[in-house]
Order: sequence, then C-alpha cells, then structure tokens
Amino acid sequence: MRASRYLIATQKETPSDAEIISHQLMLRAGMIRKLAAGLYTWLPMGLRTLRKVERIVREEMDKSGGQEVLMPAVQPAELWQESGRWEQYGGELLRMNDRHGRDFCFGPTHEEVITDLIRNELKSYKELPANFYQIQTKFRDERRPRFGVMRAREFIMKDAYSFHLNAASLDDTYQVMHQTYCNIFDRLGLDYRPVQADSGAIGGSASHEFHVLASSGEDAIVFSTENDYAANIEKAEAVAPAGERPAPSEAMTEVHTPGQKTIEAVSQFLGLPAERSVKTLLVKGEADENGESGLVALILRGDHTLNEIKAENLSGIAEPLTMATDEEIEKAIGCKPGSIGPVNLPVPVIVDRSAAHLADFVCGANKDDYHLTGVNWERDAPLGRVEDLRNVVEGDPSPDGKGTLEIRRGIEVGHIFKLGNKYSSAMNATVLDENGKSVIMEMGCYGIGVSRIVAASIEQNHDDKGIIWPDAIAPFQVAIVTLNAHKNEVVAEAGEKLYNQLRQAGYDVLLDDRNERPGVKFADMELMGIPHRFVISERGLTAGTLEYKGRRDEEKQDIPVEEALAFLVKTSPKGGL
Amino acid sequence: MRASRYLIATQKETPSDAEIISHQLMLRAGMIRKLAAGLYTWLPMGLRTLRKVERIVREEMDKSGGQEVLMPAVQPAELWQESGRWEQYGGELLRMNDRHGRDFCFGPTHEEVITDLIRNELKSYKELPANFYQIQTKFRDERRPRFGVMRAREFIMKDAYSFHLNAASLDDTYQVMHQTYCNIFDRLGLDYRPVQADSGAIGGSASHEFHVLASSGEDAIVFSTENDYAANIEKAEAVAPAGERPAPSEAMTEVHTPGQKTIEAVSQFLGLPAERSVKTLLVKGEADENGESGLVALILRGDHTLNEIKAENLSGIAEPLTMATDEEIEKAIGCKPGSIGPVNLPVPVIVDRSAAHLADFVCGANKDDYHLTGVNWERDAPLGRVEDLRNVVEGDPSPDGKGTLEIRRGIEVGHIFKLGNKYSSAMNATVLDENGKSVIMEMGCYGIGVSRIVAASIEQNHDDKGIIWPDAIAPFQVAIVTLNAHKNEVVAEAGEKLYNQLRQAGYDVLLDDRNERPGVKFADMELMGIPHRFVISERGLTAGTLEYKGRRDEEKQDIPVEEALAFLVKTSPKGGL
Repeated sequence: MRASRYLIATQKETPSDAEIISHQLMLRAGMIRKLAAGLYTWLPMGLRTLRKVERIVREEMDKSGGQEVLMPAVQPAELWQESGRWEQYGGELLRMNDRHGRDFCFGPTHEEVITDLIRNELKSYKELPANFYQIQTKFRDERRPRFGVMRAREFIMKDAYSFHLNAASLDDTYQVMHQTYCNIFDRLGLDYRPVQADSGAIGGSASHEFHVLASSGEDAIVFSTENDYAANIEKAEAVAPAGERPAPSEAMTEVHTPGQKTIEAVSQFLGLPAERSVKTLLVKGEADENGESGLVALILRGDHTLNEIKAENLSGIAEPLTMATDEEIEKAIGCKPGSIGPVNLPVPVIVDRSAAHLADFVCGANKDDYHLTGVNWERDAPLGRVEDLRNVVEGDPSPDGKGTLEIRRGIEVGHIFKLGNKYSSAMNATVLDENGKSVIMEMGCYGIGVSRIVAASIEQNHDDKGIIWPDAIAPFQVAIVTLNAHKNEVVAEAGEKLYNQLRQAGYDVLLDDRNERPGVKFADMELMGIPHRFVISERGLTAGTLEYKGRRDEEKQDIPVEEALAFLVKTSPKGGL
Repeated sequence: MRASRYLIATQKETPSDAEIISHQLMLRAGMIRKLAAGLYTWLPMGLRTLRKVERIVREEMDKSGGQEVLMPAVQPAELWQESGRWEQYGGELLRMNDRHGRDFCFGPTHEEVITDLIRNELKSYKELPANFYQIQTKFRDERRPRFGVMRAREFIMKDAYSFHLNAASLDDTYQVMHQTYCNIFDRLGLDYRPVQADSGAIGGSASHEFHVLASSGEDAIVFSTENDYAANIEKAEAVAPAGERPAPSEAMTEVHTPGQKTIEAVSQFLGLPAERSVKTLLVKGEADENGESGLVALILRGDHTLNEIKAENLSGIAEPLTMATDEEIEKAIGCKPGSIGPVNLPVPVIVDRSAAHLADFVCGANKDDYHLTGVNWERDAPLGRVEDLRNVVEGDPSPDGKGTLEIRRGIEVGHIFKLGNKYSSAMNATVLDENGKSVIMEMGCYGIGVSRIVAASIEQNHDDKGIIWPDAIAPFQVAIVTLNAHKNEVVAEAGEKLYNQLRQAGYDVLLDDRNERPGVKFADMELMGIPHRFVISERGLTAGTLEYKGRRDEEKQDIPVEEALAFLVKTSPKGGL
C-alpha cells in the first residue's frame, strides 16, 4: 500500500477520554474512531489487524474440526423465551420491535439460535459430535462502555457451540477447544493464561477463561507461586486455615462504640487489627414454596471481602445475590447494618472458613453503637454452617496445597464452557441414540473476543513511541520510508522497486511515499507499530545501502540494497506467505 | 473436507413456502435455514459460497483503490436527524432504544456515518479523492420479506462511499467503480447488465443499477434491440410518437356510459380500443407557502401505465407521489374517479407525450356515468404541459432513436450513485481547496448485494438436478465420491490419496466418504452444484481409472488414476490457487 493513497489518520495528542494505553494508541495510530458510546468505526489501519486476528482464529477453528456458519444478528424473542433468558437477561440485551411490533433482540450470544437449528437438523447420534462456529458482530448494551474496543457495546466475537451424545464426548471436545485456544493465542503472540472460572449466568458445569496478562486488566487472576494452578478470583478457592481453632482466652464483653460503623473504625477505636474482628452481611435467602424469603447472615473476617459468586452459588441463598436493605435489617435484627454480629442472631448463619477459625474476636452486638469483644464460636455463638465465602488474597495457601497465591490483572479474551444440557433440555434438543432412544444432547460453548484481542495485544506490546505489533497481526509487516522522494527520482525508484519485491515475496508492505518530513514519517511508522522498517535515502543509495530498524531494536543497521529481501526473510521468516 | 464430518443438510422435498428456484435450491442443498421472516442462518455449505463472493468483491474493490473500513451496525439517531433521513425513512428503518432510552437504528446503509467520519478526518483537497468500503451486515425491515436471501431483512452488503473536491473527480471515480463492478460480475460468472436508473430516495444526480438477468427478477429492465441502451423501467424514457398529431375529424359527443368505470369497460362499451381513450389520474400538487396543496391531473393514453417515479420527479407534484382520495376528487371535480376527463377540468393538467398525440379520443365527462367521444386537444381541451409520464412498453422506439425497446426481468445486485452534495451539504462536510477556501465535498456511493448475489447466481445456474456453480464461487470445486469405501480399503485409500493431491494443488475438495448409497451421494453432489466430480469404484480401480463428470456434462468419462490432477488443471485451470 502506498501511504499517499491511504488513510494515515495518526494523532499527536493523547485523547483525553481514553483511559488505557491501548485505547489511546488505537486512536492515535488511526485504527479506530468513536461513533457513539461503545460504538467504534474500524479505520483501514485497524481493520487490517482485526482481519488478521480473525483469520488466525478461523484457521485454528477449522483445524479443530469446527464448521463455520453465520447466524442472524437479529434474533426473535420466542427462542429466548423458550430458554428462559428473555426474562433473565438484564439491560445488556438490546431489545427491539420490528415494524409489525414483534419482539427481537440484537444477539449478544447465540445459544438459542444454534440449539434451535441443531434440534431441527441433527437426528442421530451418528451425526455427533459436531462443533459450529461463527465470527460475527455482537451487541451488549453495557451500562458503562469504556476502554475503547476493550469494552465496547458492538464488538466482534467468535462463538462456537458443540453438540454431543454424552458428557464424555463433551469432555473430549472441551479439551480440543482448550488446546485450540492455546494454539490461537500462541500464534497471536500473546502472554496469556487459561484459568478456572465460574460458569456464571450462561450456565453449565465447568469453564475456563483465557486471560491476557496486563496491569490494565479488569479481572483479578489468581496464580500459585509453585505450580500451574490458575483461577479467576471469582472461582479461586480460599482454603481453611491450617490447624485447630485456638481455644477461648477472653471473656465476652460488651463495649460502647458510639458512631463507629465500619470495621476500620471499630478496629481503630478498640486498638485491635481488623483480622481479629468479623463482619456480618445480611442477604436474601432462597424463597420458600410461598415465595417468601427470609434473611441469611454471611460472616467474614474483618479484613476479607465477600465473593458474591461463591455466595450466590450456595444453597439457601437467593439468586441473584441480593443484599438486605437497611429497613429489612432494622426490622429483623433491631439495629443498623454496622452493628450486627453472630451472637444471638435471629437468622440462619453461614460462616466463612477463615472467620470460623477465629477466637476471641470482635463483632457487632446487634444493638446500635455497641460491639462485643472476646467472642468465641460455640461458647458464645453457634458455629453452624461453614463455607468458602471470601475472595482469596495474596499470600493465601494455594488450594492444591502447593505454594501460596499471587494475584495479577488479566483481560479476558476467551471463555470455554461445558454447558451440559442447560439449553438442550430447555429447548428439547434431542437425537436418537444407538438404541433408537431419544436423548437430550450435551452442549459446550466457546467464545473469543476477536476485536478485544486487538486492544489486549497492544496492552502487552507498546512503548513510549507507540504500538509494537507482532508480525502475525501487524497491519503491515514492513514499512519502506523514502526520504525526499518527491525531489529525488532515484530514491523514489528504489522505493518502488523494493516495495514490489517485498510484496511479491508475500509481505504486507506500506510504502511511505508521503511528502512529509522524515521525522513525521518515522514517528508515524513507530506509532502504528510496523515491525520492520527500511529507510531509503540518497546518501544510503550512494553507498549502496538501505537502513533497517526493527520496531524493538535499539540500533539501526545498514543493509546492502540487494540483500534487503534476504535479510527480511531471515529476520521474519513467518512474515511472508 | 470429509463429508462424513460435515453438515450435508440436503433435502429431497421442495419446501412449500419457497417461491423461486434459488430459494428452493438453497434450502434443499443445505445452504441456508430460516430463523424467522427474512432472517436466515448460513449453514457451512452456503457460507463457503458467500465468503467466496465476498472475497472477489473485496479483491476488486482493493484493486480499484478502495480502502476497507468497518462501521458499526448500530447507528445513533442524531446523524440521521442531521441528514434529514430519520424522518424521511419509513418503516424499513429498524429503530431501537438503548438502555438509556437513546434512539438508534440498525443501519440499512451508512451515508451518515461515513460522512461524519470523513468530515472529521479529511481536511485538505490533497487527501481527495478517497473511496471507503465495507462488507457488512445490514438490516431493512421489509414489509414483506420473501424469496429467501434475495429479499431478506438481514443481509450482507458491500457499500462504498467516495469523496471528491469536485464533480469531475466524482465522474472519474464513478467510471472506475462502473468498471470495477463489471470486473466483479464477470469474475462471478454472471450474465448481467448495467442499466440507467433513477437515483430515488437515496438522492443524487445519476445512477446505474447492475442487474442479473433472470425470469424470476422483480425488476423490469428495458433494452434496445439495436444497441447498448439499457435502463430500469423507472428510468427508461418514453419518447413522443413520431409525426404531427392528426387533425380532428369527429365532433365531441357526450355518451351515457352507465356503470362503466374502467378504461377496459368503457372501451368495450363503446367498441373502441383502449389506445383511443385517455385516463385522468388526480394527484396531490406541491404545497404552496401556506402548506396548502391542490390537485394536479395526469393524463395518459388508456393502454399506458403511470410511471410514478417520473411523475414524482416533476415540478409541481408532491413528493412522495400521493393519489387523491375519492372524497377529494368528488369535492374538486364533482364526480367519481372513473369519470374524470380533461375537458373543462378545474385543476392544472399534465399530459403524457403519447396521450398528447391523440385525436378524436374518449375521456370522462367530469360527470358520473358520462364520457365524451371525439375529443381533441386545443379544440376541446387546452393542451398545456406535456411530459414523459408513462412506463415504456415493448415495441416502443428506443430513446436514442435506434431500434425498439424490449423488456426483460432482472435481479438488482449492484447500484452506483452520484450522490453529489446531498449528504455533504446537509452535514457540512468540507475540505480546504487549493486556495484555502472551504468547499463542500462531492460524494458517490456504490452498493453490492453480496448475499443476494448467491441467490441470483443460482437463478442463472441450475437444472432439474440442482445448482450448477461456476468454479469461482462453488463451495467446493471438486467432489470425490468413493463407492462402498467402508467395505473396500483400496477404494478408501485411493479416495484419500486423490483428496490430498487435489487439495495440495489448491482445490477446495469435498470427499464424500459417507456410508450412503451411490445414488444418494451422486444426487447430493449434483444438488449442491459441485462443478467437478470424480467417482472412485473398485471396478474402476481394477482398470486403473476414475470416472469424471462435469456438472454440466451429459456424459461421464474414464480418466487414468494418475492423470486426474492434470485433467482437472486442464479442465478448470482457475479452480486452483
């Protein structure tokens, strides 16, 4: 491509509303432009990279036996009503009416559509397993779209759905997809980790997320210092502290704590560390057969935080997790939220494993402005049900018993699920088995955030000059910068010649033939992250050389003109066809 | 691809709700499935062809200097309000509200979005001309979606938009795009015609449609028998009849025509051919400064039909064209619609060229149940304004004076427009010219119905056995059918060997290794339209041969096994890479 005939929409200034580096650099390098909140146009320079990501995803999905399909973006409400998600899915589902007033949505995901298709198309176990995927524009009406294409409302996703006669077959395909995802992220040159994850609202029995590690990541990922254990913080198990609970050594004492409402305030007031106290959170319990639901108390060590996903997954707790209001608390307990505690608490109690290990602790007295010190389980309050309720913290022991946990930030770029029969059962998607018996299919689903990967790659690959693309997804692998070519025909001709030579060898080449100052051209090529750069100047040509600089190189080097292609092939063998 | 691991979703029965052959065959060949009215899922077999069409369109657009972008499908109402189309566009615009209640639409086209982008990005005449395109999912909420993907609601379109300093530059790019479209449709193997078209609601000064000729086409296209003249019927000019209008020879006479309300009935009642009568249609006139609009009479020869586009484009006529109601007619004229005529008509009159050439004609008497015979222009009724108001009919003289017109059916697959400054002016999209003066850009836009092309190609390429794909867009170019391979290892091995050999040579190959009867396999490969078929049987291998049959061939032929690839390369040199 000749830069003079191409939209090079670089910007010097960092846009004020772009919070993270990938968003800033995608705007500055002229890859995207904002149309409205969470809606972005991909400019030519950005789309080239996006298409290369798509291509890698497609090639690996094809290799894994996936069959590409394309389902409509607009989906009829009837199917979502059949699965139950029309009511369950919140404000993120963009709903609309057609001209006849019928309900539709802009698909954020396609479980219903594919399940409907497959229940009509596949009749026999002989046709299973089968795995269908698409690379498609999705819409999620995020309450707060941000970070550019990282958390956009309209985005491109690869979604795949597999169908199986039984769970063993699903396990096999799940493993194939796990490996396929590793292959994809390897080829994309990303530093990523597969981590255990909660399967969340989409349902199902097991799932892994694939996270690109980056300090700007919105998700916390938990690693073992000693082995391969990795989990989303929502999923990471907080194990019980080692050893027996210490025996009581203090007497329970009521203390007047006027105006002290938080753990921090009470701890400071009493001169005790927060880990010597417990906090008591009241949430809605599961509704009984009459639709009535009481409150349930969740008790955590004062310095720990509630893991809402873990709590929500427990029996006896309403889903979604719903905190009791101040009014409900006052009515049930007779005090404000800051003064609740487990002693003589008139609601069922679930105690976190770490809180259950405390002795002589501080808690609310269920009376405004009063706390209790020297409280002990069993002696002062029954220790009923003990569960894992909290988020792990750094230094916690690893759940597999080896090493301790550390926490890093990640950007979720892939997610694989064992859906089981959640959708196939709700939508009665069956096949006939070997005995001619109708059986509900097992399903898996497998997503990749294609457009998000572009941003995630930049989070990992940039410096103060701009983006540093891996060759595999660079919009152009090579930049040829001609200096003063408009005044010097020999330079212009040498540029054209190298341009044609490298293109014929299969490289994507950007010939910067613009009538701009050398500094402007160099800065643009660096900002846009082109991995390899040749500079053609009158002085160089006189000496028979071109100047080469890799985007990550400190130094330039002179290369004889006729060796440029051979040098590039040696430096970037995969850059070509 | 191995058919045993691929969704071969063929159907024997012709679906009852599919009216045209392409819709029937796309369903029967397992290319598409209906999700809801006008919404189709592309199955693997269909998507392969769709992607090949996309690729050809993309390659030719790139060659023409087009720069690919990707704009959001969901567009904010504000831009459509700026262009004025939010109000103008009717029920086909799928409107929606996001979670914050803001207005958006699912883009049926992207003039506003690209104009907004370019007014922000391009500042100088030096950056012009520029042409941006995308291949994207669009939505038009058709009142009556039909014919499968031919007239779907969600569909894939290539839309391009060019920007220019002046009209001369737009003319140049328009010609380039005209040629590019010819290149695309040539490569797609379509029998098509570029035809002059009205630029319609999208606005602008000139346009051509590209039609695939097919008897099932929804559009009438007009050709000259003698030269290259071709136009959409909306646009085709009906020239004035040759010679002078004959002199009056009859006296005007009022005739009682009780209950005769149509041209046909009156003609029959009077024993005169319809071409000796005129019909008078009353439409709304253009509103005056007070917003009041009177009626205008349009007068056509009795056997001719009104061309609404031509009428709407005339000065003095309300846009969109609005027929007067029976009540309005009775109030203004004092009779029912069936009895109107130009004699003493109290509203302005526009006479079609052919009607203006009549003498001694029949018309309504502006009195219920009465007509006039022997009427003559000037003598009995003033012949004021004469215009081209009617649709041409077969046998009309060609507007360029050479030959006569014939009418055929076409499927519109492409449309190019000179938009002029319709959008750039409304949205103030300017650049600085050579003198530093701000000027409104000129624009062109260029669409191709990518998904529609797949159906249009089938309309032109099929027989009673199914689809006949051109090599360029066949889902697979070659089918290898092994007979009884599950029982015969030699056959299975020969199939695998040829499969690998042809794939390595760059062909898309479908190996039909299914455990099905030969007749089923042959019928499926023919239904799906695979252009080249090799059959591997035990008997053939014993003789050292394979059987070859081209999809259009009458006869099979035996080919020595080792010559299969060379034979294919000779038969379909473009089938490979």
